[in-house]
Amino acid sequence: MRVALLAHGQFPDRAKTAVGVLRYADYDVAAVLDRDTAGTQVADHITGTQDAPIVASMAAVDAAVDALIIGIAPIGGGFDPSWRPDVRAALERGADVSAGLHAFLADDEEFASLAAEHGCELHDIRRPPDDLGVADGTARDVDATVVTTVGTDCSVGKMTATRELYAAARDVGLDAGFVATGQTGILIESDGVPVDRVVADFAAGAVEDAVTAAAANHDYVFVEGQASIVHPAYSGVTTSVLHGSAPDHLVLCHEAGRGSVHGYDTTLPPIESFPARYERLAAPVSDSDVVGGMLNTRHIDADADAHDAVADYATAIDAPATDPVRFGPDAVLEAIR
Amino acid sequence: MRVALLAHGQFPDRAKTAVGVLRYADYDVAAVLDRDTAGTQVADHITGTQDAPIVASMAAVDAAVDALIIGIAPIGGGFDPSWRPDVRAALERGADVSAGLHAFLADDEEFASLAAEHGCELHDIRRPPDDLGVADGTARDVDATVVTTVGTDCSVGKMTATRELYAAARDVGLDAGFVATGQTGILIESDGVPVDRVVADFAAGAVEDAVTAAAANHDYVFVEGQASIVHPAYSGVTTSVLHGSAPDHLVLCHEAGRGSVHGYDTTLPPIESFPARYERLAAPVSDSDVVGGMLNTRHIDADADAHDAVADYATAIDAPATDPVRFGPDAVLEAIR
Repeated sequence: MRVALLAHGQFPDRAKTAVGVLRYADYDVAAVLDRDTAGTQVADHITGTQDAPIVASMAAVDAAVDALIIGIAPIGGGFDPSWRPDVRAALERGADVSAGLHAFLADDEEFASLAAEHGCELHDIRRPPDDLGVADGTARDVDATVVTTVGTDCSVGKMTATRELYAAARDVGLDAGFVATGQTGILIESDGVPVDRVVADFAAGAVEDAVTAAAANHDYVFVEGQASIVHPAYSGVTTSVLHGSAPDHLVLCHEAGRGSVHGYDTTLPPIESFPARYERLAAPVSDSDVVGGMLNTRHIDADADAHDAVADYATAIDAPATDPVRFGPDAVLEAIR
Repeated sequence: MRVALLAHGQFPDRAKTAVGVLRYADYDVAAVLDRDTAGTQVADHITGTQDAPIVASMAAVDAAVDALIIGIAPIGGGFDPSWRPDVRAALERGADVSAGLHAFLADDEEFASLAAEHGCELHDIRRPPDDLGVADGTARDVDATVVTTVGTDCSVGKMTATRELYAAARDVGLDAGFVATGQTGILIESDGVPVDRVVADFAAGAVEDAVTAAAANHDYVFVEGQASIVHPAYSGVTTSVLHGSAPDHLVLCHEAGRGSVHGYDTTLPPIESFPARYERLAAPVSDSDVVGGMLNTRHIDADADAHDAVADYATAIDAPATDPVRFGPDAVLEAIR
């Protein structure tokens, strides 16, 4: 499947869905749409992913594409009106459109009408299933080893860390499953539960269901965590994933240099405090220990400096650490096996 | 307004909505519906509320009623099929029906059709408003003193404690507001936000909005907390209320004798540990301290024994405590003023 990725004004640093798709999804990316960086290439900005041209609009995408994917997720999950011409152009070319927004494309009258007219589909991957219920508190009883990523903030690399651990586990022959809980993971996996879009009472239950299903088929289950327990807006989602997945092990994700919650006037507590924060919160439901850490060093240029940052991070959390993209996930995978 | 309260098989111990309405709402309760205790009176089971006959069905309610209120909230918030004849009978008599279930009455074809036919209304008070968004992390900046109740479990008396504190504050001349976050509080107050029914990403934001609005009009804002941070299913809702309300003070609610999470195979951690659990979780967002405790002693017969239990509880949490129903809320209110 060939896709275009919309990431206006956000590529690459605030376009985690677009970057995740470029890095992990089984799609051929024909172009990235970003007015601010149009004329450059993906490879000019990030490494370790497929390359693609960056263009200003859907109209500038020459290749035939099967779908346009909204590759950015603004705070609040709204649809930015400036994206409308691109979605319209995609549908008029017969391409499907996928998005993980709180605002559903299919509820937009113009898009629904254009999709019907041109025989294409609108995929709202954040729309939760209808059959959710409350958690039974049973995820801790599954036979599989459950590993959940947790973080100091949003957008520090939890999906990436989870995905890299999962892939590395399979590479060494472990029978591993992946539970996607956010829009990027769901886009990549074509499966998962958009936990932040679920009715609050059912959030842990939705994760429990997904973990239980994955554990029935795998020895190891890697669960994509969400946000942070220190986040003023999303900490409830974090707690629901933690208690709903009842993990055996936690992997703490952080971005080097991040000192406050992105977009909020909230200072991050010392990194040293996070393992105990998560372990104490988990403890009444599951005995979960932080066995490793993932440090996102994308803003550190020199590998040697990144290496030092990872070493400092490992000392701070008193566990093995790595940058899974830069140095591979094996140091942490070893602590899980 | 004269109402009937449905509480089949649950009155009074598991019928917290019915008991809350009997105790606090400005309604004349014509009857409680409970097949198991039919033939008795409310006053045979609980004290400190209005009295009413308990009957087996809506058909056995002789008095004219303006509304039937579903006064029980099973785990999961479903509609029990055995309640259908009572709802049907109420609508056929021209009475409105109110419920705080996850399953909405208005989505039921038979009920919607009967309501239309008989000119009465279906009130789904757990249906969240449409205009919610993510929290801005600003509740900590309001001028009012915000007091949020937290608990060791569901159904330990958080709504009651909040309501008693609010009423006592007004009685002594304080300018106090009340933020209802659950179905009982919303029924009593005819206002509030059903936080557990909100999309998980918006749960803290919904509370923040309600607290900010109340703080604009009052010197003290009492916020009804939800569930518990050790609850396997609902801890996300608890966390969202805690961070969304960013309280100055916390009041810890517990039921004497409760040793495990109701309905779950989860042992409650020592009571002594709860103040620090909540204060540490709140700390990155707001400097919130547990200033008092409310102990529900409904299962202790003798006042002297209840008094001892309250004293032990105060020692355990290292703060003033009381049973707000049995002994009044003043001991804790003093710690807030």
